[in-house]
Amino acid sequence: MEGKVVLLGLWASTFAMRVRIALAEKGIKYESKEENLFNKSAFLLEMNPIHKKVPVLIHDGKPICESLVIVEYIDEVWHDTAPLLPSDPYQRSQARFWADFVDKKIDGIGRRVRTGKGEDKETAKKELIEYLKIMEGELGDKHFFGGDTIGVVDVTLVPITSWFYTYETLGNFNIEGDCPKLVAWARRCLEKESMANSLPHPHKIYEYALEQKKKLGI
Amino acid sequence: MEGKVVLLGLWASTFAMRVRIALAEKGIKYESKEENLFNKSAFLLEMNPIHKKVPVLIHDGKPICESLVIVEYIDEVWHDTAPLLPSDPYQRSQARFWADFVDKKIDGIGRRVRTGKGEDKETAKKELIEYLKIMEGELGDKHFFGGDTIGVVDVTLVPITSWFYTYETLGNFNIEGDCPKLVAWARRCLEKESMANSLPHPHKIYEYALEQKKKLGI
Repeated sequence: MEGKVVLLGLWASTFAMRVRIALAEKGIKYESKEENLFNKSAFLLEMNPIHKKVPVLIHDGKPICESLVIVEYIDEVWHDTAPLLPSDPYQRSQARFWADFVDKKIDGIGRRVRTGKGEDKETAKKELIEYLKIMEGELGDKHFFGGDTIGVVDVTLVPITSWFYTYETLGNFNIEGDCPKLVAWARRCLEKESMANSLPHPHKIYEYALEQKKKLGI
Repeated sequence: MEGKVVLLGLWASTFAMRVRIALAEKGIKYESKEENLFNKSAFLLEMNPIHKKVPVLIHDGKPICESLVIVEYIDEVWHDTAPLLPSDPYQRSQARFWADFVDKKIDGIGRRVRTGKGEDKETAKKELIEYLKIMEGELGDKHFFGGDTIGVVDVTLVPITSWFYTYETLGNFNIEGDCPKLVAWARRCLEKESMANSLPHPHKIYEYALEQKKKLGI
């Protein structure tokens, strides 16, 4: 595929990580522009006027927003390498269902685990474990959610695991004890170059989370 | 396509309406099973154990859940008739973006307009108009969001317009005054048989909404 590829992202954003992994899986070269969420660039606001959020993928000058929309776009444009969605319509629907589940149910909980107070924090921890166990059930004995190779559900869920250390430390609980198979899956993912190079070190995320708490006064 | 098609739905659910429209557009015959949200069937809980919600499409015994996932599935399986997504990847990404926008931003507001109190109700009304205006901008001078024919964005948004009368009456405001082009688009949609036969009469929705308010004591 012709055309310059630019990613407006933020290194600690799980949504931007999804796009990085998809681009890496496909072997696509791109220019990375780092955004500051406390001082968004005029370019980001121009490229994503509706949500004003990272990630935005700009391909040949045209912006695509929302991480799962971007991942499907990448999969469709660069369809010859490392397919991220199955070819069978039913299998595709199930992959989309689970990616959507992660998006709707799991992504939002992390903030409550990190910064919530009292009962809300405890509820968030329970919900996180509950939803991760559901994902563990869906994984079953497969190597990856995509089967033998990674697919859209792996790409969608794995970025959150780089935040696990932060959740565990700030939430004072242990995820691996409840979800050993999921943590083992995350380790398998990290053996892949596309994942390892796209996910920040958990300790770096933790420092970032502490800085954020300070900045936001929470 | 072979295989029996069953829809677990609820006539007043905007999410189920999306699926009805997609099935009608494709000319797919199906069995419709009406659910009672105050007393969900064991079959619904079996077919959608994760979200426990309508709509569920069951094709050849296999369930597909979440309305937008179902609409894409229908479009992929019955791909020869009335395509709901464009064939170009960039256009597809934009259609998915806007369908997702409706799903994330607009669908949840209706309840607050209907049953919210005081300031929250007023905020919800303002937000609804703001988001509908954004959709009006996206529609522009096109006949449908899909262009000359209806597409996934039309299918996703039009069910909400059957609730407009209820929002306006219970919220004491007027949508058409602020969004005349969008209301004109909704009227154009209703000229299509697939839409007209899939959307309940606004007065019937209003009666349903009043009953709901009574049942829930709000």
